[in-house]
Amino acid sequence: MKKYGFGVDIGGTTCKIGLFETTGQLMEKWEIPTDTREEGKNILSDIAESLHEKMDQHCISKEELEGIGVGLPGPVRMDGIVPVCVNLGWKSKNVSQELEAMMDHIPVKAANDANVAALGEMWQGGGKGCENVVMVTLGTGVGGGIIVGGRIVSGSNGAGGEIGHITVNPHEEISCNCGRKGCLEQYASATGITRLARERLAGAHEKSLLDQTEEVTAKAVFDAYKEGDAVAAEIVEKFARILGNALSNIACVADPEVFVIGGGVSKAGKPLLDAVHKYYCKSAFSSCTDTRFALASLGNDAGMYGCVKLILD
Amino acid sequence: MKKYGFGVDIGGTTCKIGLFETTGQLMEKWEIPTDTREEGKNILSDIAESLHEKMDQHCISKEELEGIGVGLPGPVRMDGIVPVCVNLGWKSKNVSQELEAMMDHIPVKAANDANVAALGEMWQGGGKGCENVVMVTLGTGVGGGIIVGGRIVSGSNGAGGEIGHITVNPHEEISCNCGRKGCLEQYASATGITRLARERLAGAHEKSLLDQTEEVTAKAVFDAYKEGDAVAAEIVEKFARILGNALSNIACVADPEVFVIGGGVSKAGKPLLDAVHKYYCKSAFSSCTDTRFALASLGNDAGMYGCVKLILD
Repeated sequence: MKKYGFGVDIGGTTCKIGLFETTGQLMEKWEIPTDTREEGKNILSDIAESLHEKMDQHCISKEELEGIGVGLPGPVRMDGIVPVCVNLGWKSKNVSQELEAMMDHIPVKAANDANVAALGEMWQGGGKGCENVVMVTLGTGVGGGIIVGGRIVSGSNGAGGEIGHITVNPHEEISCNCGRKGCLEQYASATGITRLARERLAGAHEKSLLDQTEEVTAKAVFDAYKEGDAVAAEIVEKFARILGNALSNIACVADPEVFVIGGGVSKAGKPLLDAVHKYYCKSAFSSCTDTRFALASLGNDAGMYGCVKLILD
Repeated sequence: MKKYGFGVDIGGTTCKIGLFETTGQLMEKWEIPTDTREEGKNILSDIAESLHEKMDQHCISKEELEGIGVGLPGPVRMDGIVPVCVNLGWKSKNVSQELEAMMDHIPVKAANDANVAALGEMWQGGGKGCENVVMVTLGTGVGGGIIVGGRIVSGSNGAGGEIGHITVNPHEEISCNCGRKGCLEQYASATGITRLARERLAGAHEKSLLDQTEEVTAKAVFDAYKEGDAVAAEIVEKFARILGNALSNIACVADPEVFVIGGGVSKAGKPLLDAVHKYYCKSAFSSCTDTRFALASLGNDAGMYGCVKLILD
């Protein structure tokens, strides 16, 4: 194993880049803007320039680099081809091949950003020590990543771990962003929790801390829940029941050692984890009731970590 | 790669054994009774004796054998330990170690029977040519096996692919064999379809071929469906909707190239496949709508095939 690796997590606004020792130690991280103009044609060359600069600065030679891992906000096929990446302006692109050509043939591997985040949390975060991990990212949407035997399950269409689009309510009438109805994301994301809260508050209810809240956000709901607010508790219980049940079904497919919960909503911390875990246990298949629940611990750096792990296999 | 391999699928009544060329060619198959007396203490020695006999008969030396794969009706941990196997009378047992000791250290690998059946169908059956396969076995219960990158997802508790126990109806009042309520198995197994039929026939309905049927079985329902019977069609549509929806949720986790449908109920053939596929497409996440559906083609031999594939990796 060589000494260093780069992790490059490309987002629609910035690229998060990390220089790592292959032991898992983050040495330095920085960001560069993602230039999405002209179908994103400069994104990879901007990254290559930044990596070359960093190598010069630290006197790191090509021979000392194990490789470069890249996370992308879109599906990545098993052959490394990105069929399309709307957020970056890309049409079909062979990211590994193009970036390798710009980097004196240092090996490059690419994967979906939610999947590398899961891999990062498995390697150095909330799932450390495990090889079978399901990561759930509760943000604006609900993302996920499935790790089996230490490797990403990317899926034959790049849809492995798209757990936000599991149908949890066939009777839903409002559409999800994906065009279907009743997806997990419509209830368990920040947006989803806000909606559950609005619906509950529109009905009759006892006094609630949420009545005074200017904007009812997922954070406001969990803050009120922690204060013992009964209405907030109802909202949290509904969210937790829907998510806990969905995770118990995922356990019947992938049977992970641990569910790692991350994303903005997970900042609510242990009370959130406990609520989801309670409903998970109620509905889990008998063999899976002991599956652990952990909070993600790498925050926005998870993707960078996972990118580096990607090149170590 | 050596020339030969044995596949041993141990059931509660008989052990199905196959001598294979490692190319995938089945040379000979036979059965021996499974002796479950005295906590099944003779099962492995009976198998060893039978394998030794077959080696003598065909003049196959130890050096020509790649290994012995074993399928078991219970969970197998990733370290090869069988924690318990009720159907065989076993408590904790290291199958590989024990059988290797009886077989002059020819390598032995063990896995769950539903999982090796999935692997077999991937290798030489309905999923041939694919590396990412979800197998669904519709028998007395509903079993499953998840293959990712050509390997079994056994899960951290041996519950990988236990898709029969995905909760599909949280409002169910009758209990599943597993003790929980609303499992897929309660609707999509032979028993489940029979129950759906009985419930439908108990209500008011137009004339149906099923009225004259002495015993309303899953087979009778599909036979009537193929004859254009309207009541049977309602039952099949309900079964297909529940199973199709569940498979669309599995696709959001494992995203296989193909769903392979096997087990006794699948003898209903293409009409069954088409009905399930229709509902799958209606509810599938956009990236996964093109996932193929295929019938299992190895029947009861699938497990033996998968056992051999197990030792080739």
